[in-house]
Amino acid sequence: MKKWLFFPLFVMAGTAICAQQEDSAMIKRISDEILTHGKAYENLRHLTKKIGGRLAGSGGMVKAEQWGLKVMQESGADKAWLQECMVPHWVRGGTDAAEAVYTVPATGTKNMIPKKKGLDIVALGNSEGTGKSAVKADVLVVNSFDELESKKDQVKGKIVFYNYKFNDTYVQTFLAYRDAGQYRGQGPSRAAKYGAKAVIVRSMSHAADNNPHTGATRYDSAYAKIPAVAIGLRDADWLSEQAAKGIVKVSLKTNGHFLPDTIGHNVIGELKGSEYPGEIIVVGGHLDSWDNCEGAHDDGAGCVQTMEILRAFKAIGYTPKRTIRFVLFANEENGLRGGNKYAEEAKAKGEKHIFAIESDAGGFTPRSLGFTLPDDKFAKVLQWKPLIAPYGCTEFQKGGGGADIGPLARTQGTPTGSLNPDSQRYFDIHHARSDVFEAVNKRELELGAVNMAAIIYLIDKYGL
Amino acid sequence: MKKWLFFPLFVMAGTAICAQQEDSAMIKRISDEILTHGKAYENLRHLTKKIGGRLAGSGGMVKAEQWGLKVMQESGADKAWLQECMVPHWVRGGTDAAEAVYTVPATGTKNMIPKKKGLDIVALGNSEGTGKSAVKADVLVVNSFDELESKKDQVKGKIVFYNYKFNDTYVQTFLAYRDAGQYRGQGPSRAAKYGAKAVIVRSMSHAADNNPHTGATRYDSAYAKIPAVAIGLRDADWLSEQAAKGIVKVSLKTNGHFLPDTIGHNVIGELKGSEYPGEIIVVGGHLDSWDNCEGAHDDGAGCVQTMEILRAFKAIGYTPKRTIRFVLFANEENGLRGGNKYAEEAKAKGEKHIFAIESDAGGFTPRSLGFTLPDDKFAKVLQWKPLIAPYGCTEFQKGGGGADIGPLARTQGTPTGSLNPDSQRYFDIHHARSDVFEAVNKRELELGAVNMAAIIYLIDKYGL
Repeated sequence: MKKWLFFPLFVMAGTAICAQQEDSAMIKRISDEILTHGKAYENLRHLTKKIGGRLAGSGGMVKAEQWGLKVMQESGADKAWLQECMVPHWVRGGTDAAEAVYTVPATGTKNMIPKKKGLDIVALGNSEGTGKSAVKADVLVVNSFDELESKKDQVKGKIVFYNYKFNDTYVQTFLAYRDAGQYRGQGPSRAAKYGAKAVIVRSMSHAADNNPHTGATRYDSAYAKIPAVAIGLRDADWLSEQAAKGIVKVSLKTNGHFLPDTIGHNVIGELKGSEYPGEIIVVGGHLDSWDNCEGAHDDGAGCVQTMEILRAFKAIGYTPKRTIRFVLFANEENGLRGGNKYAEEAKAKGEKHIFAIESDAGGFTPRSLGFTLPDDKFAKVLQWKPLIAPYGCTEFQKGGGGADIGPLARTQGTPTGSLNPDSQRYFDIHHARSDVFEAVNKRELELGAVNMAAIIYLIDKYGL
Repeated sequence: MKKWLFFPLFVMAGTAICAQQEDSAMIKRISDEILTHGKAYENLRHLTKKIGGRLAGSGGMVKAEQWGLKVMQESGADKAWLQECMVPHWVRGGTDAAEAVYTVPATGTKNMIPKKKGLDIVALGNSEGTGKSAVKADVLVVNSFDELESKKDQVKGKIVFYNYKFNDTYVQTFLAYRDAGQYRGQGPSRAAKYGAKAVIVRSMSHAADNNPHTGATRYDSAYAKIPAVAIGLRDADWLSEQAAKGIVKVSLKTNGHFLPDTIGHNVIGELKGSEYPGEIIVVGGHLDSWDNCEGAHDDGAGCVQTMEILRAFKAIGYTPKRTIRFVLFANEENGLRGGNKYAEEAKAKGEKHIFAIESDAGGFTPRSLGFTLPDDKFAKVLQWKPLIAPYGCTEFQKGGGGADIGPLARTQGTPTGSLNPDSQRYFDIHHARSDVFEAVNKRELELGAVNMAAIIYLIDKYGL
């Protein structure tokens, strides 16, 4: 009898082992397909080299939407469509230019003579330009908001230069970005409050080069919308050194402005679920990018990975139980209108989203998957770690999502996740002209798709 | 009484917690020092850009030794010296050149007319050149050794082209290298056995470019030492396609040969142990590189990381209990004479090496530490994983070492370890002209040093 008592346990254990072997084999098939026949890299080449920068509202974005729709269809979507939404339409409006005039002692005398140096600048996204004539003023260097407050009486009529340094000691570079990012976001209005004429921010980067990094700023409507630009790290060091020695006058010319909101689109591909079509899993990235770069890592990578998962599922003949939506969001960089629209329409239609995952941290080698889930669901997901770890995501972390899928989480409580690739190289190129195709490694990009495909496969098969 | 029974346990637990906090703080200090004041990147710039390629026996290697000695001293070694050893002296001897002549149908006719195409080749390390006149012969393509055996009757007088593909499906790229590497190592002699005039191997790489990758071949003295070259992946695909359609004749001109063995040196820096000076810990990389590249990842990275650990220990005022040796080995690529010499002298002097770790897998983002240790020692090391994981090495693996520290392990049973950085980009550039400074990321390089410094600190403090 004793033997028989144990029998069901053996059967259960046996079933679990079989399921695990089956899952392991399926994930290997997905990985082999992507690593040997992957189209992500060539798709990224097209997106970055043939289309290029694609800020919401731009012609590049219109082209990118049409291309995305075509690739969704070619990749085997049961259905692919454009989801219309209104998007902000900020334009750079011309060439950003800046020049510094600084005083230096003339050789052999104590007379100070002015010298000139061009600065490599980029206007911050959403910022207002200087108007037809340049803004010219003395520079006031502050290393922090605290220093700005302590020098608030000196701000009036000046160009405030926030020389806040990206903190190299954070191993996770996104922590340094969160820390420094406030100067880009709040810096202009906080300086305008005290009468500054314009703002320069040190780029949020630890790059060894001098490329300036743009990104969205947010004006506080209580104060004047003053021009705001970023400079690269070498210029930033130079500027702070000169200003410490004497007076530096900078002349800035930028042309940024908003045009009326215009029409943009999320690009959506779908594989219909065979058993639970009403349960939807979303995977996505954002199709828009800043205008000063190719947007290869940010977030061309997330887009081509998204479509690669679709392609690989079809290529190996995988029929999902649940409906999987592959989404290229319209407007992450300066409005989030695409993500909002997606969530809004999902709610209006009463759609049930069981999970959404985003890749928006670059196409680098995958290291972890992050999840924002109730504890019991996280425990379930955590069991799958040994199946996915061999492909790069050796860590499963609590906390994960993405800007574009945030609205789904906020409005419907959808559990979210993120692909977390290695972050060391991201802020070298983030929002800078160096975010180009050549900075992306084919296999690193592909492995990101493999790891996301694996977690989607498991959630599709077992639910969440 | 019950209370008192537990007291020693509390004390022990408390002590353990304090030690852990102290270790955590020390590792953070090391990391902060390296990430903010690190010299590894600038040292690598010098080694790659001012010195460049440095094969054993070359002038570049002599310069590199002198430079290494100086940097060891500047980094604060108690003592730094050159350890002489005889090294092989292979020279490329001139420019490698190859041309293919293939027959194609003339437009509008069935006549076949010959066309020419240059091939981008690199002679394999240790290979013998073609002599003054080029080797010219029809190409026989084989995709594997099995195919070579099945076509052995066709080999005589031909140039055998091993078109064995680097297996993309291995996530750990070193497995693909081990798999394909046998064609570079054994290919020439296995073809010479059947009368081949020369050998071409497909590069051991999954790079998207066409750079050929060199590396050591090993002749079997039973057969003729025929010339052997590598070609890049695009040329390899082209060659196999043409050969499948018709006859391709290739002309090869190489000039490789050995000169008499010459003098080389390991570069050694030392921090003397304050409590157990007789227990030695080694950390190292190899200073030699192939001649066709800057040897930035292979293994300039390991060298500058090694010296960075020395610099950081001194900069934060860390006095080791045990003696730490920082070693730049003389001859990993084609002889291992440096590693052999180091172990030989250690044995002769009766030195006790408690641990040796090598960084020779590129300066990429660190992912794991590997250890070849008895189980009890591995269990001890494993306890430290939570202290090191925040800096990148989230995995501790069984199995780890390096070519140069192998002789220590073999002759004295020294426990060994390795830094295992992410391997996706390594075989894009390994032994190819693209292994240059620009392919190395500053922070990834530095974090490698941080992780090795942390494990050395712990082993130094607690022994092994």
